Amino acid sequence: MIFGITMGDSSGVGPEILLKAFRGGLLRHRVAAFGDLAVLARCNEELDYGVPLRAISQLSEYEEGALNVVDLGRMQAADVTPGRISAISGAAAREYVVAATEAALAGSAAAVVTLPMNKEATQLSDTVFTGHTELIAELCGVQEATILLASERLIVTHVSTHVPLREAIARVKRERVQRVISMTCEAAARLRDSPRIAVAGLNPHAGENGLFGREEIEEIQPAVEWAKQQGMPVEGPVPPDTVFYLAVERKRYDAVVCMYHDQGHIPLKLLDFEGGVNVTLGLPIVRTSVDHGTAFDIAWKGVASTRSLVAALELAAKLAAR
Amino acid sequence: MIFGITMGDSSGVGPEILLKAFRGGLLRHRVAAFGDLAVLARCNEELDYGVPLRAISQLSEYEEGALNVVDLGRMQAADVTPGRISAISGAAAREYVVAATEAALAGSAAAVVTLPMNKEATQLSDTVFTGHTELIAELCGVQEATILLASERLIVTHVSTHVPLREAIARVKRERVQRVISMTCEAAARLRDSPRIAVAGLNPHAGENGLFGREEIEEIQPAVEWAKQQGMPVEGPVPPDTVFYLAVERKRYDAVVCMYHDQGHIPLKLLDFEGGVNVTLGLPIVRTSVDHGTAFDIAWKGVASTRSLVAALELAAKLAAR
Repeated sequence: MIFGITMGDSSGVGPEILLKAFRGGLLRHRVAAFGDLAVLARCNEELDYGVPLRAISQLSEYEEGALNVVDLGRMQAADVTPGRISAISGAAAREYVVAATEAALAGSAAAVVTLPMNKEATQLSDTVFTGHTELIAELCGVQEATILLASERLIVTHVSTHVPLREAIARVKRERVQRVISMTCEAAARLRDSPRIAVAGLNPHAGENGLFGREEIEEIQPAVEWAKQQGMPVEGPVPPDTVFYLAVERKRYDAVVCMYHDQGHIPLKLLDFEGGVNVTLGLPIVRTSVDHGTAFDIAWKGVASTRSLVAALELAAKLAAR
Repeated sequence: MIFGITMGDSSGVGPEILLKAFRGGLLRHRVAAFGDLAVLARCNEELDYGVPLRAISQLSEYEEGALNVVDLGRMQAADVTPGRISAISGAAAREYVVAATEAALAGSAAAVVTLPMNKEATQLSDTVFTGHTELIAELCGVQEATILLASERLIVTHVSTHVPLREAIARVKRERVQRVISMTCEAAARLRDSPRIAVAGLNPHAGENGLFGREEIEEIQPAVEWAKQQGMPVEGPVPPDTVFYLAVERKRYDAVVCMYHDQGHIPLKLLDFEGGVNVTLGLPIVRTSVDHGTAFDIAWKGVASTRSLVAALELAAKLAAR
C-alpha cells in the first residue's frame, strides 16, 4: 500500500511540511508525493533539510530510501515565490490532485492525502474551481460528498460546508440529512468501536419545539427517526450549544452531524487548532487532508506544524485498512 | 449594596441552588431572594439544609444572620411538584423577576441576579412571554438589549439570540452590529483592563471576500470600521472558526461579538458548561443570570451545581461597582 500525498500550492507551507515530516520519520507508511521535484529540491535546499528525493513517473516505480515524488514537471524552481498568489503554482497544485486522485481511482494509491491549495491562485487558471474537495468529488464522479473533521477528542461531519450561511439553512433537508447521517455512521464505524452519533439541531435550543425555527421538526427529526429505523446508533436533534459538551466532556457521542460549516468547525478548531484532519466522505476512494490552509505568512520558513499531515496520513491508513 | 436574586421556577433547580450556595457561604455579598418563602422552606427541609430564612417585604428590612427573602406569597409549599411544568410556578417565577427588576430600577437593589425560569411554564399564564431577558428589557423600557456570556476564559456577546437561525441572519445589519459592538466594548471595559474585542464573521471563512456570503462586506465590515473610528479596540470580521481559538488559546481577544446564538454559545459551553454567566447588556440596571436552565430532571435532589450562581453574583458585583 502506497499513500499518495499531494504537495499543495508551492507558494504555501505544503512542500516544507512534506519534507519536514519525511525527514523526521513521522510518515510511518509508504508514501509518494504528487508534485514537482524541482520545487521540493529548492525547498529542501533553502531549509537545509537534506531529504533524499527520487523522481518516479508512476507508483509502481516506488523504492525505499528516499522521498518518492511522482514528478509532474509543472514548475521550475525559479517559478516559486513563497507567500505569493501565483497562477502557475495554483494550476500546478490542481494537477497534483488530479494525478493523485487518478492513481487512487486506478487502485495504485491506497488513499490520497492532500496538502493545502490556494483557492484564489487556482481560480486564476480555473475560473470555475470552487474547492479542493469539490474538485476531487468531481474527478470521482460523485455528486454528494461531505467533510468529516476529526481531532482526537471530537469527530464532526457537515450537511453543508463552503456556502453562505443563508444557503446552508436551505440545504437542511431531510434527504440530505439522512445521507450525511449514513455517511457519518459508516465512517465512524471504521474509526471507533460501537460509535454513537449525535445529530445537532440547526436553530438555538434545537428550535425549542418550533418556537425558534421548524427545521428540526420538519427535516432533522424525521431524518433521525429514519436512521434509527435503519438501525443506526443515532440521537437527535440535540441543542447545538450542548451537543459538543456532551460529546467531548461527557463522552456521550463519538461524532456529531452538524448542520453547517461553523457549527462543526468552531468547536473542533477550538479543541485542536493544528491537529485536525479533514476526511471526504462519500467518495469511492479514501481521501484525507490537513485541516489548515496554505499559510502564506509563514511559508518556506520551516516553522509550519507537521501535526495535521501526520494525523491525516494515520487516519487515511486506518480508513484504507478496513 | 444588596443584590436581588430571583428564586426562578419552583419546579426547577433554582430554590435548592440558592439555599445550597447561601449555606456554603458562597454568596459573598449581601443578598436577598425574591421568591416564595413557603417554597424555600419546603426545599430547605426536604434537603435538610437548615438555612435560616427570614421573610421581608422590602429590601430596607434586610438584616444579617439569615437568608432574607422578599416573600411574594404566590405559592404554598404544596403547590410545588419538582420536575413538572406548572402554570402556578411559571406565573410566580415571572413575578419574582418583576419585583426584583422594580427594586433595581428604584435603586434599592444593586443588581438583579436571576435563577432559571421555565419558558413553557410561564407561557401557560403569559402567552406572549418570549424569554427571561426580553421580559426584563420590557420592564426597563428598553428595545435593544443583548446577551453577554462570560466564563473565565471567554466573553461572548450576540447580535441576536433566541430567534430562528434564518431570522438571525436577517438581523445582521450594520446599525445593530454597531450597537452590539458598543455595548460589548463598554461592558468589557468594566470587566477587563484594556480589553481587545473581535467581531466574528457570519459566514464560513468570514465570507472569503464575498464568495460565501456578502454580510461581512455589506454589514459587518462597515460596522467595525465605524467602531474603530470611534476609538473602540475592535478587529474583524474574523473567520468564525478561528476567532475563538485566537481569543482563548492565543489570548489575542478578551471578548468576541458573535452574529448569532450558537456562534457564541457553542464555544462558551464547550469551555465551561456549568460556570458560565449571562449578563444582559443595554439595560439601565445590572442584571446577570446563571447560564443554565431549570434542569427539571435533577430538580430538588440537591445535586445541581452552584457554580454559575456564585459566578453570576461575583460578576454582578463587579459590574455594579463601576
